Amino acid sequence: MGFEHDDPLLVLMPSGRRGRVPTGASLLEAARGLGVEIESICGGRQTCGKCQVVVESGRFPKHGIDSSEDHLSAVGEVEREYCEAHGIRGRRLACAAQVTGDLLISVPEESQARKQIIAKAATDRVITVDPAIRQVYVEVAPAKIDDPRGDWQRLQTALADQWKLTDRSIEMEPLRNLQRALRKGRWAVTVTLWQNRLVQRVEPGYVEGIHGLAVDIGSTTVVAHLCDLRTGAVLATESMMNPQVRYGEDLMSRVSYGMSEPQGVERMHRAIVRAVNELAEQATRRAGLTPAAILDAVLVGNTIMQHLLLGIDPVELGGTPFALATSDPLDLAARDLGLEFHPSARVHILPCIAGHVGADHVAVLLAEAPHQQDEQRLVIDVGTNAEMSLGGREKVLCASSPTGPAFEGAQITHGQRAAPGAIERVRIDPVSLEPRTRVIGHEAWIEGGPDAELPDSAKATGICGSGIIEVVAELFLAGVVRPDGRFEETAAERSPRVRFAGRSGEYLLAEAGHTAGGTPIVVTQSDVRAIQLAKAALYAGIKLLMQHQAIARVDAITLAGAFGSYIDPQHAMILGMIPDCTLERVQAVGNAAGDGARIALLNVGQRAEAERLARWAQHVQTATEPNFQDEFVGAIAFPHASDEFPHLEEVLSSRPPSSLTAGAGGTRGRRSSRSLS
Amino acid sequence: MGFEHDDPLLVLMPSGRRGRVPTGASLLEAARGLGVEIESICGGRQTCGKCQVVVESGRFPKHGIDSSEDHLSAVGEVEREYCEAHGIRGRRLACAAQVTGDLLISVPEESQARKQIIAKAATDRVITVDPAIRQVYVEVAPAKIDDPRGDWQRLQTALADQWKLTDRSIEMEPLRNLQRALRKGRWAVTVTLWQNRLVQRVEPGYVEGIHGLAVDIGSTTVVAHLCDLRTGAVLATESMMNPQVRYGEDLMSRVSYGMSEPQGVERMHRAIVRAVNELAEQATRRAGLTPAAILDAVLVGNTIMQHLLLGIDPVELGGTPFALATSDPLDLAARDLGLEFHPSARVHILPCIAGHVGADHVAVLLAEAPHQQDEQRLVIDVGTNAEMSLGGREKVLCASSPTGPAFEGAQITHGQRAAPGAIERVRIDPVSLEPRTRVIGHEAWIEGGPDAELPDSAKATGICGSGIIEVVAELFLAGVVRPDGRFEETAAERSPRVRFAGRSGEYLLAEAGHTAGGTPIVVTQSDVRAIQLAKAALYAGIKLLMQHQAIARVDAITLAGAFGSYIDPQHAMILGMIPDCTLERVQAVGNAAGDGARIALLNVGQRAEAERLARWAQHVQTATEPNFQDEFVGAIAFPHASDEFPHLEEVLSSRPPSSLTAGAGGTRGRRSSRSLS
Repeated sequence: MGFEHDDPLLVLMPSGRRGRVPTGASLLEAARGLGVEIESICGGRQTCGKCQVVVESGRFPKHGIDSSEDHLSAVGEVEREYCEAHGIRGRRLACAAQVTGDLLISVPEESQARKQIIAKAATDRVITVDPAIRQVYVEVAPAKIDDPRGDWQRLQTALADQWKLTDRSIEMEPLRNLQRALRKGRWAVTVTLWQNRLVQRVEPGYVEGIHGLAVDIGSTTVVAHLCDLRTGAVLATESMMNPQVRYGEDLMSRVSYGMSEPQGVERMHRAIVRAVNELAEQATRRAGLTPAAILDAVLVGNTIMQHLLLGIDPVELGGTPFALATSDPLDLAARDLGLEFHPSARVHILPCIAGHVGADHVAVLLAEAPHQQDEQRLVIDVGTNAEMSLGGREKVLCASSPTGPAFEGAQITHGQRAAPGAIERVRIDPVSLEPRTRVIGHEAWIEGGPDAELPDSAKATGICGSGIIEVVAELFLAGVVRPDGRFEETAAERSPRVRFAGRSGEYLLAEAGHTAGGTPIVVTQSDVRAIQLAKAALYAGIKLLMQHQAIARVDAITLAGAFGSYIDPQHAMILGMIPDCTLERVQAVGNAAGDGARIALLNVGQRAEAERLARWAQHVQTATEPNFQDEFVGAIAFPHASDEFPHLEEVLSSRPPSSLTAGAGGTRGRRSSRSLS
Repeated sequence: MGFEHDDPLLVLMPSGRRGRVPTGASLLEAARGLGVEIESICGGRQTCGKCQVVVESGRFPKHGIDSSEDHLSAVGEVEREYCEAHGIRGRRLACAAQVTGDLLISVPEESQARKQIIAKAATDRVITVDPAIRQVYVEVAPAKIDDPRGDWQRLQTALADQWKLTDRSIEMEPLRNLQRALRKGRWAVTVTLWQNRLVQRVEPGYVEGIHGLAVDIGSTTVVAHLCDLRTGAVLATESMMNPQVRYGEDLMSRVSYGMSEPQGVERMHRAIVRAVNELAEQATRRAGLTPAAILDAVLVGNTIMQHLLLGIDPVELGGTPFALATSDPLDLAARDLGLEFHPSARVHILPCIAGHVGADHVAVLLAEAPHQQDEQRLVIDVGTNAEMSLGGREKVLCASSPTGPAFEGAQITHGQRAAPGAIERVRIDPVSLEPRTRVIGHEAWIEGGPDAELPDSAKATGICGSGIIEVVAELFLAGVVRPDGRFEETAAERSPRVRFAGRSGEYLLAEAGHTAGGTPIVVTQSDVRAIQLAKAALYAGIKLLMQHQAIARVDAITLAGAFGSYIDPQHAMILGMIPDCTLERVQAVGNAAGDGARIALLNVGQRAEAERLARWAQHVQTATEPNFQDEFVGAIAFPHASDEFPHLEEVLSSRPPSSLTAGAGGTRGRRSSRSLS
């Protein structure tokens, strides 16, 4: 489809990208068509407000256009209401505005979609290197005129005689290369086999080298570890943003995208396959190899990521009864998914436990192994859905809980994904109520106050998940927010940072001069409410598992996932996100799902173990548990020292109220880097 | 579980199987218990109507029973409604009727599972329709909130419970469609399985229809038969020239092309895959289907065609020791060869016997079954390499013989492939030496002579294989060519058609005015020599097999392949191409390789039989047999009546020398079309 000469011309600043776009296209789509990604969480529903843009009016001779607000469709009722409710002026929502004429648009920094900073390391665990593929060297009887059998039959005889490997089959690629390899190697070849039964590769002479890829497909980030399957060493780790983000920030938006767009599922499927191919390309290049070196891979992801990877419409996971297409592990030819590894490469996908407890959680269990411990360990992976397990040697229960996207910065007035410019850490002086903050991409803590002059890298663009948790906890500790989550009206008398409009309070976290956008960043009553709802859902799920496990207290808590690495366990406990536990027993383990994938890649027996675990673990369906609503409502307030939280006092006292140093949580500069090497 | 003496006695016609069956068993199960399979797709739900049977009433003293409709349970409401809706009278649904007393039941042909069809081969053969794929209808437990398993796991449970099918795997395509199909069919689906273990397709509700393709890849012609795998019927047959011809007319030229051109093998591979795709497209269109209807295929070809189909360089087959890449049968995903059938379609490739005795010859053996006969039968498939088998029940020997491309019109001065314009039949008046010819594409015989005015369609472009054999035999019979192959110098005095340049003679077969090119078509001394060498190679190979079989005479000769259908056995015998045999026992069977492919498509057990045959048949390597050269030299001259050719006199006398009518061979207008119908 070509564009007509009289189609509107669109110029996007600050990138300067320009081009003709179809009349009637939304600004979001039109910008995407020109290669400019604008943030969008809600997928065009005019509810997240992430895609705000500014229309520049006037003549722009340099660009050869006259730009005008009239060259966009009029503001509709939904957009108007959203903007009024959120105090947005002079901006349009790119998802709502349709192009009708020439335009010059500025995309503010906070609306630009950007590459994220990602966890790149993992844990200490002893893993026996026993991969699904192996190499064997064989000497084959040369072809003779009186032996009518084929070369493949001669190779089979050699494998049976020299390695006791019988009943083999062979992939097309080695069959095609077999005769050349045998003759080039003077009838001696190195054979690579999968599961001792499928010949994947035949190389002339004696050759060493088998490689595999472990991939964790997160809804936000995709991480790939290239491993030497002989030594178990990680040769390269690469990560990138999940390109499906452009189709919907959170999982449910992607389900919706698949439902509303005829090619939506196919598009998201291709996007993730392309991403894995790119990571394979980058990782192998870094190791001086090519993707054809990859003969085996283990892929994990939550259930929706797994369905999209397989090209399966995840629509059934969007509503009750949350039916998976398949819960068993899968062994596939990589090529059948479009993965451009070795033509004979295999892919293993770990099993799922239930509609919202996926292969990624099974991988976390594999890595953290609560079932091998005598104590009662709680393992949580927090995202849009929190996946959690509780138990030990006798029994492990698992569940998912609909925390919603608040912890990922969505539904928060100035929320954003963890990206440079995001406020990730917050301390508030309990007396002066002055904040100190840390911004991703800038090492030093930033003092509040209108006088400070900040370098650009220190200017905030918004608040990410860990920052939101900290600021709400700090506001609670400082008495600005009451145990029930309401802003304390008397606090406004203590500091001008606390303001009220009617009964609705807000706290000024960063003044205009400290932000990249030049507008203040505040924490509102509704932000506190959003965090309360999210943490209550998380806690209610945990509580349910504790009830089913018939225990009043957990012995240890493992926080898995990138988010888990960034939150400060102290603040999490103060908010009541996690149950009572001594702080020393709360541990962030980074990308445990990636670790689990790597374990299953390096040790084929762990794949069977994963299958056993997935069947053995008992799923508790929070959606149908009558207690869940009770627990949820009961968990909305912030906790106080009690029978339920005996350690809370200790946690609070361990932290001098005026402390302005970093807490126990990791920071993006020096994160708890644990590796399997 | 034993049966009581007073259990009902069941007799099933037409098979005559009888035995006691448990009271209350459905007729379907009871018949199965006696080894009689009655069709059923719906699995006893009284919805498919495949299992209709007739109850014979009355006394049957031979069987020792009184049979009565009262010895079956009464017709229930579901059965009554089904029969009324479908106009079924006087029959019962075997799945619904329960045995309560002695019965004699007739199973109409259309209700018999494993229907039998007759292969009209040299020996009529009964083929049981029992394909590699089947359909089953299942009702699946709906997804429920408290069942965390996937839909595929629920389907597996249904397959195990309702059809005793356990340990299934599933292709990507049905996995992607599974959830939609289950919901659209209200949790009832029709599942298509390959080899009872791989789910290829899932369709909502009750559906009927499985189709397959049998393909014979000849070096010149590719033929495809589209079959209904329920009835065994051929729905369409399509053929086309093998597009590899452009890369080399005969097999060895293609091997050379692969060696000399860097992309040669890949190009020939793609060409044949494209050709099979086109035939699939044409055949399915003719049957009102699409290629996606094809779920199974059997492909055969000679060893070089088989290698190129698989994308394997056939270079090793171009020289000693003629090593095959693989001799075993192959089961592949059609997509892995680039075949655009159903995304889950399977392909079976029959085994090879030796470097130049390929899957096509195994298919010929499957169709002609010399191993099931008491007599000594010679089966020949003549091409660039003649593939031949000789033997019977005790032992079948096979060999290939390098006849070269002369029989295909190559290396002949005016030789050409069998195509419109080619002279295919020749008679020469032994007195006047005037020829009569027939040209492909023109019905009438053409008289020689400069005066005749011919329509364009009758103008010759060259001589094809059958024409060359006939003209050489006729020249020999007319005394123009001597028994040693030399032109008889005195023949020039008998007719101006015979001319000499030095000692080298030639015969004017078509004058300039009778040819499309306007230049005369002649048969030269070197053409006669080329035919002598080719027929000597063929005969020497046969002779070697006779020696190994220790027989002086064969009982019957089967000429397989298109070429075999066109040559006149009388002329072949006069030339000494084939050994002595009464003419009535020489039979052309057309595309027997295609028939064999079809047999293996319709009956999965015949694939195992082909593998057994390929291993059981003993290969005689002509290239290393010291006798071969002797026999070859001894076979260069044309034979005369002798101990070796006792029937030659009879053959010669059976044909009045002046006969100008067509001989026993087929003609292209009305070819001996034999079908498996």
